Amino acid sequence: MSGTTPSTPLEQDELSKIHAYWLACNYLSAGMIYLRDNPLLREPLKPEHIKNRLLGHWGSDPGQSFVWVHLNRLIRKYDLDVMYVSGPGHGAPATLANSYLEGHYSEIYPDRTLDDAGMKRFFCQFSFPGGIGSHCTPETPGSIHEGGELGYSLSHAYGAAFDNPELIVTCVVGDGEAETGPLATSWHSNKFLNPIRDGAVLPILHLNGYKIANPTILARIPHEELEWLFLGLGYKPYFVEGSDPLVMHQEMAATLERCVLEIREIQDAARAAGTFERPRWPMIVLRSPKGWTGPKEVNGHKVEDFWRAHQVPILDPVTNPKSLAMVEEWLRSYKPEELFDETGRLRAELRATAPEGSRRISANPHANGGVLRQPLSLPDFRAYTVEVKKPGAEYISPTATLASFLRDVMKQNMKTFRVFGPDETASNKLDGIYAASEKTWIAEYKPEDADGTEIALDGRVMEMLSEHTLEGWFEGYVLTGRHGFFSTYEAFVHVIDSMFNQHAKWLEKSKNELSWRAPISSINLLITSLVWRQDHNGFTHQDPGFLDIVTNKSPDVVRIYMPPDANCLLSVANHCLKSVDYFNVIVADKQPHLTYLSMDDAIKHCTKGIGIWDWASTDNGEEPDAVLACAGDVPTMEALAAAAILKEKLPDLKLRFVNVVDLFRLTPNAEHPHGLSDRDFDSLFTKNKPVIFAFHSYASLIHKLAYRRENHENIHVRGYKEKGNINTPLELAIINQIDRFNLAIDVIDRVPRFRDTAAHLKDWLKNEIIEHLNYAYAEGIDSEEIRNWTWPG
Amino acid sequence: MSGTTPSTPLEQDELSKIHAYWLACNYLSAGMIYLRDNPLLREPLKPEHIKNRLLGHWGSDPGQSFVWVHLNRLIRKYDLDVMYVSGPGHGAPATLANSYLEGHYSEIYPDRTLDDAGMKRFFCQFSFPGGIGSHCTPETPGSIHEGGELGYSLSHAYGAAFDNPELIVTCVVGDGEAETGPLATSWHSNKFLNPIRDGAVLPILHLNGYKIANPTILARIPHEELEWLFLGLGYKPYFVEGSDPLVMHQEMAATLERCVLEIREIQDAARAAGTFERPRWPMIVLRSPKGWTGPKEVNGHKVEDFWRAHQVPILDPVTNPKSLAMVEEWLRSYKPEELFDETGRLRAELRATAPEGSRRISANPHANGGVLRQPLSLPDFRAYTVEVKKPGAEYISPTATLASFLRDVMKQNMKTFRVFGPDETASNKLDGIYAASEKTWIAEYKPEDADGTEIALDGRVMEMLSEHTLEGWFEGYVLTGRHGFFSTYEAFVHVIDSMFNQHAKWLEKSKNELSWRAPISSINLLITSLVWRQDHNGFTHQDPGFLDIVTNKSPDVVRIYMPPDANCLLSVANHCLKSVDYFNVIVADKQPHLTYLSMDDAIKHCTKGIGIWDWASTDNGEEPDAVLACAGDVPTMEALAAAAILKEKLPDLKLRFVNVVDLFRLTPNAEHPHGLSDRDFDSLFTKNKPVIFAFHSYASLIHKLAYRRENHENIHVRGYKEKGNINTPLELAIINQIDRFNLAIDVIDRVPRFRDTAAHLKDWLKNEIIEHLNYAYAEGIDSEEIRNWTWPG
Repeated sequence: MSGTTPSTPLEQDELSKIHAYWLACNYLSAGMIYLRDNPLLREPLKPEHIKNRLLGHWGSDPGQSFVWVHLNRLIRKYDLDVMYVSGPGHGAPATLANSYLEGHYSEIYPDRTLDDAGMKRFFCQFSFPGGIGSHCTPETPGSIHEGGELGYSLSHAYGAAFDNPELIVTCVVGDGEAETGPLATSWHSNKFLNPIRDGAVLPILHLNGYKIANPTILARIPHEELEWLFLGLGYKPYFVEGSDPLVMHQEMAATLERCVLEIREIQDAARAAGTFERPRWPMIVLRSPKGWTGPKEVNGHKVEDFWRAHQVPILDPVTNPKSLAMVEEWLRSYKPEELFDETGRLRAELRATAPEGSRRISANPHANGGVLRQPLSLPDFRAYTVEVKKPGAEYISPTATLASFLRDVMKQNMKTFRVFGPDETASNKLDGIYAASEKTWIAEYKPEDADGTEIALDGRVMEMLSEHTLEGWFEGYVLTGRHGFFSTYEAFVHVIDSMFNQHAKWLEKSKNELSWRAPISSINLLITSLVWRQDHNGFTHQDPGFLDIVTNKSPDVVRIYMPPDANCLLSVANHCLKSVDYFNVIVADKQPHLTYLSMDDAIKHCTKGIGIWDWASTDNGEEPDAVLACAGDVPTMEALAAAAILKEKLPDLKLRFVNVVDLFRLTPNAEHPHGLSDRDFDSLFTKNKPVIFAFHSYASLIHKLAYRRENHENIHVRGYKEKGNINTPLELAIINQIDRFNLAIDVIDRVPRFRDTAAHLKDWLKNEIIEHLNYAYAEGIDSEEIRNWTWPG
Repeated sequence: MSGTTPSTPLEQDELSKIHAYWLACNYLSAGMIYLRDNPLLREPLKPEHIKNRLLGHWGSDPGQSFVWVHLNRLIRKYDLDVMYVSGPGHGAPATLANSYLEGHYSEIYPDRTLDDAGMKRFFCQFSFPGGIGSHCTPETPGSIHEGGELGYSLSHAYGAAFDNPELIVTCVVGDGEAETGPLATSWHSNKFLNPIRDGAVLPILHLNGYKIANPTILARIPHEELEWLFLGLGYKPYFVEGSDPLVMHQEMAATLERCVLEIREIQDAARAAGTFERPRWPMIVLRSPKGWTGPKEVNGHKVEDFWRAHQVPILDPVTNPKSLAMVEEWLRSYKPEELFDETGRLRAELRATAPEGSRRISANPHANGGVLRQPLSLPDFRAYTVEVKKPGAEYISPTATLASFLRDVMKQNMKTFRVFGPDETASNKLDGIYAASEKTWIAEYKPEDADGTEIALDGRVMEMLSEHTLEGWFEGYVLTGRHGFFSTYEAFVHVIDSMFNQHAKWLEKSKNELSWRAPISSINLLITSLVWRQDHNGFTHQDPGFLDIVTNKSPDVVRIYMPPDANCLLSVANHCLKSVDYFNVIVADKQPHLTYLSMDDAIKHCTKGIGIWDWASTDNGEEPDAVLACAGDVPTMEALAAAAILKEKLPDLKLRFVNVVDLFRLTPNAEHPHGLSDRDFDSLFTKNKPVIFAFHSYASLIHKLAYRRENHENIHVRGYKEKGNINTPLELAIINQIDRFNLAIDVIDRVPRFRDTAAHLKDWLKNEIIEHLNYAYAEGIDSEEIRNWTWPG
């Protein structure tokens, strides 16, 4: 590809068609905000044609459609594969209008036909009960990005571009969104984009000028400062600025073409050479008036090019005839009769300016990534089995074990699988992955990097110290049909709470209401560096509360797994990597932990998701005196150690030991598809015996899940109580009362026949606590007896 | 103030003293990581002098101490008031070392004396069970910023500088932290700093080069790109780069002095003129080797100036004699015998290079803001009372009412109170505040801004589209002894979940364990634009789950209030503004809602925090058939409407109506200081009658709080079920079954004597649901009967 880019590339005919197409977009955008009838103004506008409640965002629509129509020209000229990410997703009318004009909307929603009646239905549904939302919701064809919450457009765009070498992802970044932290750092994604194997991202900062009620920062700094900023962020900024549409069309056409050609030059050069230095990718700053082509003034107040154009510029046309006349004048200014034919369809010569088939942006298959998705080629996870001759005898890091499996998953899927982590892949003991692929690094290198830094231009492990950017990349990557795995520190996964919420909402709608959206790979999130092992970082790194957020979301899309050992983690990870349309949360620590189950047993246990460990129980299959339950690696070990103490000291006690892997098993089956029936729950936890539950996270979560169970009032949960500092593992467990000694006391206290008779044992246990704490305070570490504890069975 | 800044400002004597002082800092930093005994190496180093478990971060310590010692020089020279914010708070050894050398550590912790024995205790406590953490935890004098979670150093620094005109807040930003989103956007805080009334922030980007195991982005881009970036962010960047300490001392001394003088020039000019254009504030890029002065190589691997210097450079000195020798060689390289006298105290001539008294950075009173804090001057909130002649008769926006009160709070505290909101103060109907003070805006102005944009150089309402930055500013502001109020959209408060967690942890430690930290003002967070009124924005804006995060934190520091109407909101807000050391969360919608309580009643009700509304009850003070409870404005209205239906249709039903304002009243008093005793709880909710609870948030939260109550199994909660889209208010309530009709059915279904006899009424209720939904789907709005519903009593 080559070409020159004259400063006024559009011939008159093309210019007027592009302009007319753009006016049609703007007409539809305004129409869907206002009209419930008379969609093409075939008759004078009357109050009954106007919606009762006017909802929608007009401000960014014309600017976004302006970008879209100019993309159309280049798609046709160069047969480009282009996606469009709408950062100002509130301005969905632009995306919807283009999707409708391209005919794809009618293909997906057949009653939104390309005629008067279909347009009426198309208008009526917008931001209307029973209809569609006013953002780029999952219902919007061509969209992978809702835009309801701001901050993630650019990281989504980069995620879509990774490993899609022919794709150009245009990302309109609103100048409001640009103020958010996640967006501000995601500009640095250009240090992770490889021009050989990846596609391109073309960011277009839309200097629309205003947020809801304020100017934007980037619109109110000098031009040179803005230019420095994007030079400093590593881009080559082009500016398209103005308000005269005909001048702006020429400038945008020329600039956009120049950018596309530069992108191709960068890619061609790198692909020919087989290597490259970090490119300075082009980006565009588009400064256009907010609410462009809309009312200039309303009731004496400036509207166009001001914050008053943000949502609905004229508020009361139903009740105020003067306002009604203004709306009509505005809508008629687009001359719909010249844009649409007598059937209500866009005139053919205008339709011809848009691409066809899957080249239409609204129909780009990457934006419905499930249709492109191929299942991962997975090695047999059993090949990575840790040998377990007897339970609780050896310490092995679960995540280090997982690393070997992930390494080979990577090897077998070198174009469709990536691993994400915020500077923590090695810290989380997943560095075994590097044997398959190192970390992507497209910035400067130093000689010493060869000694263990594990970075490479073509690395596939994505590390940047921004959980936001990583999660955004990952979402963009799976939304376009690929696969991945993300590990992060437990306490700081809260950084992406809101991103989790939004992606879960997207999945829920897509999965349950939109059959045309094909299933996409799950987000697989490994939470590690867990609360119970923070001897290094202390209190700030102790927060297992992400699960509370997860359990608020639809049971159709969330899963939580707490594998107790390495083999269980392998089994769980394998299951998650095969799944679709979930947000899978796996909780597993990076430190060495005891192994309990052979792979066969691990598979059985993880498939059931919950089960009795007979070898740790003393009830011989009979009704027990008490149930000792656990979920999570450290709680499992402490519970087992408690069981060992009780077995030795109270040989008559009938204790049942239950381990939970799949947390939603605890929920009633009416509320979550993984929930146990009450009968099955009771068969594990009994209907009336005391249950002592050692839980990884905050205790209340178990009650949240299980409060409807018959035996709920006897379930006594120990979990993290927000007590900690720099502690040894045992010390931290003790101060939160989840340690072996306190758990043993809990059991004794709740079994009537021992409560009063085992006073001596309780004294011994309390003394053990004091002695072990004293050791820790003296030596700074737990005693060898604790550090090397093994199951005595 | 004026002065010249020669390029080598240090005379030989001063240079060697500053260098020696810095070496002492580095010695102490390394010492606290390694040593449990022999703190001054009076004898040969032996394994038993080394801690069993080596924990701590060496990498950024020398660079941070380098900054500190040069600040000391200028503090003394110009009598500056300087705070130090350590972005790389993991590198606490630097802060601790300086604090100890300045003597302030011993003033706060008297047994950490300035002698061998004290130094041994000082070393031993570091990152040791029973001791202090390895970050700048609240235990660290001179610190307002923990640094355990990265991203917030610069926004904390700006928050500290606001309204402190003489203060210079130095903020060391780690190049790892600089990759986070929150940090990346917080550079724009310079568009909100007023050189007349505010102090200065001097950011120092510490290009330490590496994170845990990766290079940093900013250290691996060309020099000119870095310069452009900071020019583009509006700063005037100065570079201090190198590794030779003696050269670097001269450069840092000269550069830091130039920055201080520029700061004073900017301030002096603006203060003399009474106005200003946005200044280009100086900042420094300090490129120094990670682990500077530490081991250059260990076992053949580069350590200094590489990622291997991040934590503990030499790992096994206890077991490996060669490593022990290396540690000893390293520590002795600082020549501690020349730095400390025979008593173990820093030599007097070196001590003299540090400031004294409250000019010591470690003793800066702003960093213990409670000691400077003055209570707010509060107008009588009763003056803003909304007249309520009868309950449930008039609609008034609670937040618009609150705005008048906040306006006058602002007026009476024009130097110590700020209001924060992400572009949403007006959207949240708090724009009445602007009558006292507009929004701060230090970027460009346009003529049209005069028409309602409400921005001003000296505005005190802080708006930027970054919840992270706002929360960071607010925390910095209260941590230095001032007051504020933050309003934000409910769904997107999740953006700052992790910041909430960290601040709550800081408060909990400060309040419960550190008597020397004086109480600070509470964070007052108004969550508004609530889940139940998202007709405009739909599903993505529906997430009331922040409360689940809040309820995980220590009951000593968190409070949640759900005032049902305008007067209750006034009473609650007044209470919160007076409080200290809490994170107060107020949930109140911006839309017009019914008013119920006169101010006298509102005060009583909010003081009790929970209560029976007799006027809505039909139990005449007797044992009821059922309790209808509610929390939150929309649930309260729907519950009242249900009560009205039941009163009319089932006159024999004895219904008790309970409203909850203070959510923690539901918790047992053993678990939260606001919890009701079981007796009081039972007196409201009965021991065995059905309770139907209409709740604002996810239903499970009520169970989380109340699962230990005797009547818990009869508490049936309706809340948000993650079902929504673009809905009318009633439609959204209906699909989540929290509407008046479903609540009435819930009551009927749970009262045995009506369950079977009221079938006709249930049919009628179900029919009402269908009719009202049909109306909404036809008209896009709720029927007038619903929109204008009032309490019929």
